[in-house]
Amino acid sequence: MSDFFKDIKPLSYDPEGSDLAFRHYNPDEVVMGKRMEDHLRFAVAYWHSFAWPGGDPFGGQTFDRPWFGETMDMARLKADVAFEMFDLLNAPYFCWHDADIRPEGDTFAESLRNFEEIIDYLGTKMESSKTKLLWGTANLFGHRRFMSGAATNPDPEIFAWSAATVKACMDATHKLDGQNYVLWGGREGYETLLNTDLKRERQQAGRFLQMAVEYKHKIGFKGAILVEPKPQEPTKHQYDFDVATVYGFLKEFGLEGEVQMNIEQGHAILAGHSFEHELALASSLGIFGSIDMNRNDYQSGWDTDQFPNNVPEVALAYYEVLKAGGFTTGGTNFDAKLRRQSLDPIDLVAAHAGAMDVCARGFKAAVAMLEDGTLEAMRDERYAGWESPDAKAMLESDLASIAAQVAKDGINPQPRSGRQEILENIVNRFV
Amino acid sequence: MSDFFKDIKPLSYDPEGSDLAFRHYNPDEVVMGKRMEDHLRFAVAYWHSFAWPGGDPFGGQTFDRPWFGETMDMARLKADVAFEMFDLLNAPYFCWHDADIRPEGDTFAESLRNFEEIIDYLGTKMESSKTKLLWGTANLFGHRRFMSGAATNPDPEIFAWSAATVKACMDATHKLDGQNYVLWGGREGYETLLNTDLKRERQQAGRFLQMAVEYKHKIGFKGAILVEPKPQEPTKHQYDFDVATVYGFLKEFGLEGEVQMNIEQGHAILAGHSFEHELALASSLGIFGSIDMNRNDYQSGWDTDQFPNNVPEVALAYYEVLKAGGFTTGGTNFDAKLRRQSLDPIDLVAAHAGAMDVCARGFKAAVAMLEDGTLEAMRDERYAGWESPDAKAMLESDLASIAAQVAKDGINPQPRSGRQEILENIVNRFV
Amino acid sequence: MSDFFKDIKPLSYDPEGSDLAFRHYNPDEVVMGKRMEDHLRFAVAYWHSFAWPGGDPFGGQTFDRPWFGETMDMARLKADVAFEMFDLLNAPYFCWHDADIRPEGDTFAESLRNFEEIIDYLGTKMESSKTKLLWGTANLFGHRRFMSGAATNPDPEIFAWSAATVKACMDATHKLDGQNYVLWGGREGYETLLNTDLKRERQQAGRFLQMAVEYKHKIGFKGAILVEPKPQEPTKHQYDFDVATVYGFLKEFGLEGEVQMNIEQGHAILAGHSFEHELALASSLGIFGSIDMNRNDYQSGWDTDQFPNNVPEVALAYYEVLKAGGFTTGGTNFDAKLRRQSLDPIDLVAAHAGAMDVCARGFKAAVAMLEDGTLEAMRDERYAGWESPDAKAMLESDLASIAAQVAKDGINPQPRSGRQEILENIVNRFV
Amino acid sequence: MSDFFKDIKPLSYDPEGSDLAFRHYNPDEVVMGKRMEDHLRFAVAYWHSFAWPGGDPFGGQTFDRPWFGETMDMARLKADVAFEMFDLLNAPYFCWHDADIRPEGDTFAESLRNFEEIIDYLGTKMESSKTKLLWGTANLFGHRRFMSGAATNPDPEIFAWSAATVKACMDATHKLDGQNYVLWGGREGYETLLNTDLKRERQQAGRFLQMAVEYKHKIGFKGAILVEPKPQEPTKHQYDFDVATVYGFLKEFGLEGEVQMNIEQGHAILAGHSFEHELALASSLGIFGSIDMNRNDYQSGWDTDQFPNNVPEVALAYYEVLKAGGFTTGGTNFDAKLRRQSLDPIDLVAAHAGAMDVCARGFKAAVAMLEDGTLEAMRDERYAGWESPDAKAMLESDLASIAAQVAKDGINPQPRSGRQEILENIVNRFV
Repeated sequence: MSDFFKDIKPLSYDPEGSDLAFRHYNPDEVVMGKRMEDHLRFAVAYWHSFAWPGGDPFGGQTFDRPWFGETMDMARLKADVAFEMFDLLNAPYFCWHDADIRPEGDTFAESLRNFEEIIDYLGTKMESSKTKLLWGTANLFGHRRFMSGAATNPDPEIFAWSAATVKACMDATHKLDGQNYVLWGGREGYETLLNTDLKRERQQAGRFLQMAVEYKHKIGFKGAILVEPKPQEPTKHQYDFDVATVYGFLKEFGLEGEVQMNIEQGHAILAGHSFEHELALASSLGIFGSIDMNRNDYQSGWDTDQFPNNVPEVALAYYEVLKAGGFTTGGTNFDAKLRRQSLDPIDLVAAHAGAMDVCARGFKAAVAMLEDGTLEAMRDERYAGWESPDAKAMLESDLASIAAQVAKDGINPQPRSGRQEILENIVNRFV
Repeated sequence: MSDFFKDIKPLSYDPEGSDLAFRHYNPDEVVMGKRMEDHLRFAVAYWHSFAWPGGDPFGGQTFDRPWFGETMDMARLKADVAFEMFDLLNAPYFCWHDADIRPEGDTFAESLRNFEEIIDYLGTKMESSKTKLLWGTANLFGHRRFMSGAATNPDPEIFAWSAATVKACMDATHKLDGQNYVLWGGREGYETLLNTDLKRERQQAGRFLQMAVEYKHKIGFKGAILVEPKPQEPTKHQYDFDVATVYGFLKEFGLEGEVQMNIEQGHAILAGHSFEHELALASSLGIFGSIDMNRNDYQSGWDTDQFPNNVPEVALAYYEVLKAGGFTTGGTNFDAKLRRQSLDPIDLVAAHAGAMDVCARGFKAAVAMLEDGTLEAMRDERYAGWESPDAKAMLESDLASIAAQVAKDGINPQPRSGRQEILENIVNRFV
Repeated sequence: MSDFFKDIKPLSYDPEGSDLAFRHYNPDEVVMGKRMEDHLRFAVAYWHSFAWPGGDPFGGQTFDRPWFGETMDMARLKADVAFEMFDLLNAPYFCWHDADIRPEGDTFAESLRNFEEIIDYLGTKMESSKTKLLWGTANLFGHRRFMSGAATNPDPEIFAWSAATVKACMDATHKLDGQNYVLWGGREGYETLLNTDLKRERQQAGRFLQMAVEYKHKIGFKGAILVEPKPQEPTKHQYDFDVATVYGFLKEFGLEGEVQMNIEQGHAILAGHSFEHELALASSLGIFGSIDMNRNDYQSGWDTDQFPNNVPEVALAYYEVLKAGGFTTGGTNFDAKLRRQSLDPIDLVAAHAGAMDVCARGFKAAVAMLEDGTLEAMRDERYAGWESPDAKAMLESDLASIAAQVAKDGINPQPRSGRQEILENIVNRFV
Repeated sequence: MSDFFKDIKPLSYDPEGSDLAFRHYNPDEVVMGKRMEDHLRFAVAYWHSFAWPGGDPFGGQTFDRPWFGETMDMARLKADVAFEMFDLLNAPYFCWHDADIRPEGDTFAESLRNFEEIIDYLGTKMESSKTKLLWGTANLFGHRRFMSGAATNPDPEIFAWSAATVKACMDATHKLDGQNYVLWGGREGYETLLNTDLKRERQQAGRFLQMAVEYKHKIGFKGAILVEPKPQEPTKHQYDFDVATVYGFLKEFGLEGEVQMNIEQGHAILAGHSFEHELALASSLGIFGSIDMNRNDYQSGWDTDQFPNNVPEVALAYYEVLKAGGFTTGGTNFDAKLRRQSLDPIDLVAAHAGAMDVCARGFKAAVAMLEDGTLEAMRDERYAGWESPDAKAMLESDLASIAAQVAKDGINPQPRSGRQEILENIVNRFV
């Protein structure tokens, strides 16, 4: 045992308890026929919680972690502390990028060796832990070699490097029994069209994703392949802007049956959508997969990756998740980082605990809204006209016939209230 | 002749001339083998220039036009003045919504009668004018009946009304020899998911667009069907958010070979993209059609629809248009409105004249950049590695083979400068 | 009695009650030694609730109110219905612009006559109602004469018109025993510097505000003069951008002891601030007055003026109000409008009721946070170092002495955790 | 001589010349009675050009500079290369933060020793160079000790450290004959009100600025003290949000006669203003000082610090600078960084050269607009009514008298066109 969390006891469900307890998250509570833990499927993100030094564009490292340093010993210490926190939180899942867990080597071969060694170490840790792998992914954006993209790079050698990296990360995810494999298009995008062949780059990206899907089948990986949309950052024009964009991309490359979405609240916001919109759209297109439940400051023009803390917002998100059928391989990942002034181990634990509680409250409110049924009934009633045989027939008809009917019937349709405020009031009974 | 523009003379090309001349736009100048007029294909928008009263959410009508009023006489006077301005500007094209040109009737039948009568009137005017119809479209968003959408409305009667309206507008566009028919998804979107069945509404929208395409073929209309993407306004969640979104939608409904894009700078900006991005993306997807060359204030969160006035920006847009092969049926529409304080007839003429000059300057700069070739050569050079047989073979390969090759070759790819500032300097030689 | 709200019964406090009851707002409940009604001081805004037709830039009127029409009869009917709603809601206050309550006349004199007559009518209504006037204000932005500003207009006649209007509105507010008089700088701002003399316009605005203050004293009005900051809309550059801007303006014109702020959540958001920031800043500068408790969509770049519905946000706002000492003459106005699809009378009542409940919940949470004291204790502890005599002396010292001390002491200050997540978790215990 | 710029020759004015010449910037050309160099007073920023490694929140260092490393030798090499570039560009000025030019020591004393040594080294370099110091400043935001602010820190020791640092930087600026001393409120702001005493922090900041002004007088520094406003980044709520905010702050602390503004385009944009607005406002308040002429991407919600490349925008900025009387101690600093993909020495030189050319073009256009006089004449004409004795008398009058006059005269003011498009067309003749 490291002594990083030395005075912190494992957290348990204790509604009236001390600061560091779950006041709302009760993993064993059965809701809609399933344990809450199995509904929410929380995951801790290795990168922000254990690899991020606290820098921003105007200042460097603020966190002072004993495991910072690019050696295998440090990587193992980091893993030890990470699992200690997973245990404290009773976290069912975690996630990683390759670069979070292993030191970068001087060559691809050395990085790969480091990676494989640490994957084995994680495997050993997992044997004595309840925490499983929600997903693995490759960091194809941090190192300077990726500054102009990975799959979309103008240099085919970097495409090759990226492909080899994804192979290694898929192998490792498979080995650790990961539930999903995620691709986030880090720097797949561009800064200026003046130096960019957009068409070619999109073709490269499409082929790359096809290769990942082909490889999944080849190795027999049963988890889902997830793409995580994000707009505007780090490149000004990210190719995987939002769910609708990625859907078009999947259709173009024949992948819509193979790939699902990992949707992040902060990314949805940056794209000008609500989180619920992205969830509902993915669900309606049959590509909903998993979520990153971290919030963005609505007024900052970049990804602030904060732990969720607004129950009403979280409730509306889980409401869409539930209507999409809930998670299968997916889960609730916190792609969230401490504020850079939150220096202490207790900040890290408390941030996760608070987030899990906020999610539990939001989730229970979403369940209650769904079980109550008023919202769905009011929505159905609004579209009731479309259930008539005439309305259905009209959809199979054509403009000229409809126009003839309009003339014949002399219709004069009247608008009906959309009831937004009343619906919002109903939501407020549950949150 | 009305006396609305009484002291304003027809504008001509006069580089050193008076305020109200074209200093840069010379319709007959041959550039890249074609007259400038035939390249740029300018269109005046009926709605903003002749139907908009100058209101905003905090105040009503500021413009005091003699033709304001919902009668057929007023509609004819409006048409007279419009064609007087087309003549003053020597404008090759114009565009309309049904609601711009005819008074609303009490019934569908009456509105249709008004519309058909005014279409005939426009037809007569066009006989003695050089100005042709770039496109027609239906206003399915202004009247309160459309407050919850047209094709996507929860009420099938409004779907029917909308379908009958589009039929009439397509018929009229065909009759007037329009070059295109445009669909802008006015209120096809939603305010809150709480009252919205997103999946159903998308299905309605898809079917509606299919019907429009089917009807085009039925009546033998040879122009293009154009969809105009727009995000965030007037509904918070517009379904046709941007080019990428509409592409996915077209693919979903099997329409990607039938429908092209009408791309507006202001809409691109609101979606978080550059205008050039939307143009280049549409071109790369084979769905580029036409443009609305009005600018948005970058800092206002709504569509400000201002006349273009920044030559460097306009140049970059036409550069993409030229690389897309230029316009076929499309053109340069000004979906631009006077500022509401610009009350006078001369403001209206000068705004268009200034915009046409800005476009001419930008277009000539774009031509010069293309003919110079440095930019394209530098871009090609950046991707030269992908021309090698090995690189091409890699794209046909798979992750495992690539990984083996990476291991074997011990590659260590080095980043190369993206040259953004130097490329921007080169652009500045031409604008 | 009109029959507009015919089937709607007066609302009462009924925690488990029907849809149209207050589940949380109990006016008579005593909190921190005062009735909740006297803390919150809710006001209904005449303009959005009774004068706004439901238009937006893409469509016109959706609401169909029996009192729409520019006659005195209609104005009286509107007042009748307004007071019926005040009674239904048991609203302690209301607010108006002159233009909300009277028909515009053809001349200033006629408008004034209409206004004075309707003020008398309102006075009579108030005699038999518990609802009092929170504030009056002048609409100096709606009519086309104000298109280039009121006090800041390039035309001195419009300054004169505006001054005469404010005089009339102040007289009327005084007559009706209003608690405050508000000035919102509607179109005091500009679209382009090219036609604007910013310095001169600011001088005009400063003198205008001085005149209003002088007139208040002359007539013996005891209420507060409030300025309402707003950025970016309707003019691109509004002079009263935010609290900090108005403070500098007040200092420049010697008015900081005479004028307080009416702060709106939506305006704070548009200015890039949080609502709490504006409240805390005004409080720290001694100019906090009143609030408009309507929310903005964070992602729409304009003022959406929605009824509040997020309890955690509302709680943080009231927390700052309470720390500022609560309201004296100010109150909680809803400068909120129904969504334009919410057509029915019940939507109007339910929207207010829901908002009042949300405020009551937020307020009670704020009280609990304050009474608990943990948040304030943690904040005080963070600054405890500044309570030492040495630290206080340093502030009276100078750079050279401090530098000498730093050298002498060899200090090496270490950062301490800011505890943001833990503080946010604490807030979540109360909301 | 280092060999960093080995194949790059000094740039000269050569309108038809090679890529690396000034095509527009001719330092010796006399415009409005003064050499262009003396008007524009270009400065190179040490930090971005020589100290920034190319990182962003998603990736680390991309630049590979021989002087990267925290030793005095490296600091001297960096200075050598910097002066080599100043010479290549014939740059009249440069600017620094202490942290740009010296390695951080383990203690304050060691950092100070390093700093003083490198200041002497710079002094020696300046003796054999034409390049002078436009301004110096202290980096009080990069190191983790400043994570919660400098002057506004909850820890008085950090206030002390900051004060001692500013003293050293002011001494050094004075020693090197700097034209100005700048304070940018790096992390003077806050992330959450929950841990912030806003009133106290503002008092600390006010006192700190007073101390800097007092120290200036004590040491006889004749340059200007400049504050640089910035909103929203790096803290969510920066105290020095914009010019208007800082003006109020200066008034509060009695500093409005002592401190001027250093205004950056990118910061203006982030605050929701145009650059011209901030310039015109500072000028009208008598606090205009200097500019940072780097552009922001309008669509990125953070400071992108790009070299200027849009001539029309730059022209409008210099138009305001000229109307403010031009620079006295101020100048045109490029607080601009290469895109992180622009790796090569030639990128660095070309970026500056292109920016200087863009500024020269914009400046010459501004001069031409001013000398032409049409714009100013049209503006003056718009306000001509205010020149009448009656209008002037009205401003000295009161609400009641004005109201009486309005009634007596029966005025009915009519709006007049604001002419925005025509004015924009006029601007386009010059750019």
